[in-house]
Amino acid sequence: MRELIERLHEGLPAEAVLTDRDVTASYAHDMASFSEAGTPAVVVLPRTVEQVQHVMRTATALRVPVVPQGARTGLSGAANASDGCIVLSLVKMDRILEIDPVDRVAVVEPGVVNAVLSRAVAEQGLYYPPDPSSWEQCTIGGNIGTGAGGLCCVKYGVTAEYVLGLEVVLADGRLLTTGRRTAKGVAGYDLTRLFVGAEGTLGIVVRAVLALRPAPPRQLVLAAEFPSAAAACAAVCEIMARGHAPSLLELMDTTTIRAVNDLAHMGLPETTEALLLAAFDTPDPAADLAAVGELCTAAGATQVVPAEDAAESELLLQARRLALVALERVGTATMIDDVCVPRTKLAPMIEGVAAIAQKYELAIGLCAHAGDGNTHPIVCFDGADADESARARESFDEIMALGLALGGTITGEHGVGLLKKDWLARELGPVGVELQRGVRQVFDPLGLLNPGKLF
Amino acid sequence: MRELIERLHEGLPAEAVLTDRDVTASYAHDMASFSEAGTPAVVVLPRTVEQVQHVMRTATALRVPVVPQGARTGLSGAANASDGCIVLSLVKMDRILEIDPVDRVAVVEPGVVNAVLSRAVAEQGLYYPPDPSSWEQCTIGGNIGTGAGGLCCVKYGVTAEYVLGLEVVLADGRLLTTGRRTAKGVAGYDLTRLFVGAEGTLGIVVRAVLALRPAPPRQLVLAAEFPSAAAACAAVCEIMARGHAPSLLELMDTTTIRAVNDLAHMGLPETTEALLLAAFDTPDPAADLAAVGELCTAAGATQVVPAEDAAESELLLQARRLALVALERVGTATMIDDVCVPRTKLAPMIEGVAAIAQKYELAIGLCAHAGDGNTHPIVCFDGADADESARARESFDEIMALGLALGGTITGEHGVGLLKKDWLARELGPVGVELQRGVRQVFDPLGLLNPGKLF
Repeated sequence: MRELIERLHEGLPAEAVLTDRDVTASYAHDMASFSEAGTPAVVVLPRTVEQVQHVMRTATALRVPVVPQGARTGLSGAANASDGCIVLSLVKMDRILEIDPVDRVAVVEPGVVNAVLSRAVAEQGLYYPPDPSSWEQCTIGGNIGTGAGGLCCVKYGVTAEYVLGLEVVLADGRLLTTGRRTAKGVAGYDLTRLFVGAEGTLGIVVRAVLALRPAPPRQLVLAAEFPSAAAACAAVCEIMARGHAPSLLELMDTTTIRAVNDLAHMGLPETTEALLLAAFDTPDPAADLAAVGELCTAAGATQVVPAEDAAESELLLQARRLALVALERVGTATMIDDVCVPRTKLAPMIEGVAAIAQKYELAIGLCAHAGDGNTHPIVCFDGADADESARARESFDEIMALGLALGGTITGEHGVGLLKKDWLARELGPVGVELQRGVRQVFDPLGLLNPGKLF
Repeated sequence: MRELIERLHEGLPAEAVLTDRDVTASYAHDMASFSEAGTPAVVVLPRTVEQVQHVMRTATALRVPVVPQGARTGLSGAANASDGCIVLSLVKMDRILEIDPVDRVAVVEPGVVNAVLSRAVAEQGLYYPPDPSSWEQCTIGGNIGTGAGGLCCVKYGVTAEYVLGLEVVLADGRLLTTGRRTAKGVAGYDLTRLFVGAEGTLGIVVRAVLALRPAPPRQLVLAAEFPSAAAACAAVCEIMARGHAPSLLELMDTTTIRAVNDLAHMGLPETTEALLLAAFDTPDPAADLAAVGELCTAAGATQVVPAEDAAESELLLQARRLALVALERVGTATMIDDVCVPRTKLAPMIEGVAAIAQKYELAIGLCAHAGDGNTHPIVCFDGADADESARARESFDEIMALGLALGGTITGEHGVGLLKKDWLARELGPVGVELQRGVRQVFDPLGLLNPGKLF
């Protein structure tokens, strides 16, 4: 332990090595429930690539595990410390190195906060789409590690689609450059993509070349009330089948609507079973919303309200953004699931979650990136009640089993971490797991990078 | 050898095992120049996943190398036979298994021809964008193996972005399922993406879940004549910097224009140094073309001609599509390069190619997916002239060196195969190559899958 700290100091400034146990304890975990966190030996806060290399060389020399961290807003425990590890926080590497409107790329360090980058590129008429709920806190490095999504994915895709190239410090401290800054490239296996969603198990991302898009027009939002989740899902399917390209297509169930009203007194319609929000950032969003409104009515919507302007649109989005915070007040604890099913299976998924809530006598609020089939059932329970906590955990698992049975995945955008480790093997199957382990072994033969995560 | 054929017959119908040497010789190579091809021991044409598994089990048992093939329209030698190998042709596995307009996916076997799929999905109002020049012949399996691109990539991206999930027969005959049919998913490392562009070195793709898009409106094309490549490239940069989203942005140099005129008497303007074609498939393409036309004029275009209708647009695209065939008539042989540079480096790339043509006293025609910075310099030479052939090869290499020096890649969409093997190592560097080899080893420990390709 003393040797570890001494060696780290050889290549890091004093203020970049934290050993005070109260301080290091505050780096122990991310925002996942039901995920164990150990006690880190030390927290390091490098500012340069060379310093990260020094940390990894030290870790390899002394065989100390390393847990990379961004803003710790993750929901799967992927950033949780293990006992005696080095927590490698990348938050001080937070420079935007370049924004190029012609090549439509940004080059950034991993600690850049998502919202900071989004605003910086917007100033140049550009757009970095991935927008996880935690976008004001979460870092690009964390987004890459978890493969983060957001509201815009139905039109613009997830983080993976915006990562063109990477610089990565390997477990042994060597520097790997992957990918490109060109629009296209097929030189060798796509190692860049391998790092996205790898939760820091393959290497430490220290620089990223990100693709940007031209800034779209401001979006306009519509709200539609449905008498059942099935009717709302039928509308979603029809909207997508007709070739519409909404910039957002979100669903909230009654439990969620009530929770949001309780929190923010927004006057959302509590008599409705499912509220659908659709948005367009097209040249003529009002026309697109009108067409989508008609599809909603045909699918059984009792009320269709297009926002008249940006302010009204913003209010509707605000309601959606408050969903998680609102549901967190329902019990004393929450577990957020992240099951993504084929769009055609959205209705049975949502109905199945309602049945699971009934079976376990739990409040499970559900909001969904409906256009993607990506549901977030949020199990609300009393964390101090052992029986209710056990039922919460069981219901959480049953939701994943349902998602897999419907041809879906256990995680659309939150990742595996510790929380869904056992389930990953069920989704991938033995052949898949064997190959994934093999790949991990290639990058991290000593097993020092975020051990115990993923599988 | 006799044992190999006998064992193959145990799991394959007689007509699926070809041993006639005249017949098997016709499967020896793809369309790449300067790439050696060996003599296959046997060609197999399985129709089912089980038959592919049988082939791979046999190959593993007898330690016989396997070269997977689609339509052999590749341009890098990736499908060339090696001596004594099993050529595994997937062209008989050509069923479209499913097209789902709600989930926006198609499920296909690898032997489906690109154009067949494109037409089938178009009938349902859907769009499968990747459109390599060989789209009437090439197969989806081959597109996945090479990571194929096309004209539409500037707006719609390459093959990789449309592959959601795969079924793959591994070297030892086991079946691996990767990825998903959902819109999103981050369960484990992205092995799906690893197979795209892997040139059959990691496994045999036997089924693919492909993402589809809604069919866009028909595109309208504009042609602009420029007095220099630099002026045309300045226009390209300006078009992209202003946030336009052309569905196609192509450049042809004088050598190419003349060759097309010689072939098809199309009356293209031979006095121009660079012809730029831009297209839009937006709701109001005429307005977008007008805006882009103004940018072209400001950048120095001497003539800007928007097509009046679909027929005129088609004629302009026809000229671009004829480029390669036309240049093939300039010499007796051609080498097609595929260097992709950042958009901002397109002008020095094109000027550099012109200088290389002059230095080596060769005709090098250049057309480019200019919006992507992806150039196709086409070296035309007399294949019977040893000195000229040597100069052609040298100029080809010098073009790649220039591309790398400008921050580009040796291959934007054609792949590495045999042709660019030595260059791949230069682009990836020693750390990158070591990891890529490690990954290959995980999937193919005996080195039986397309040995000698890539690296």
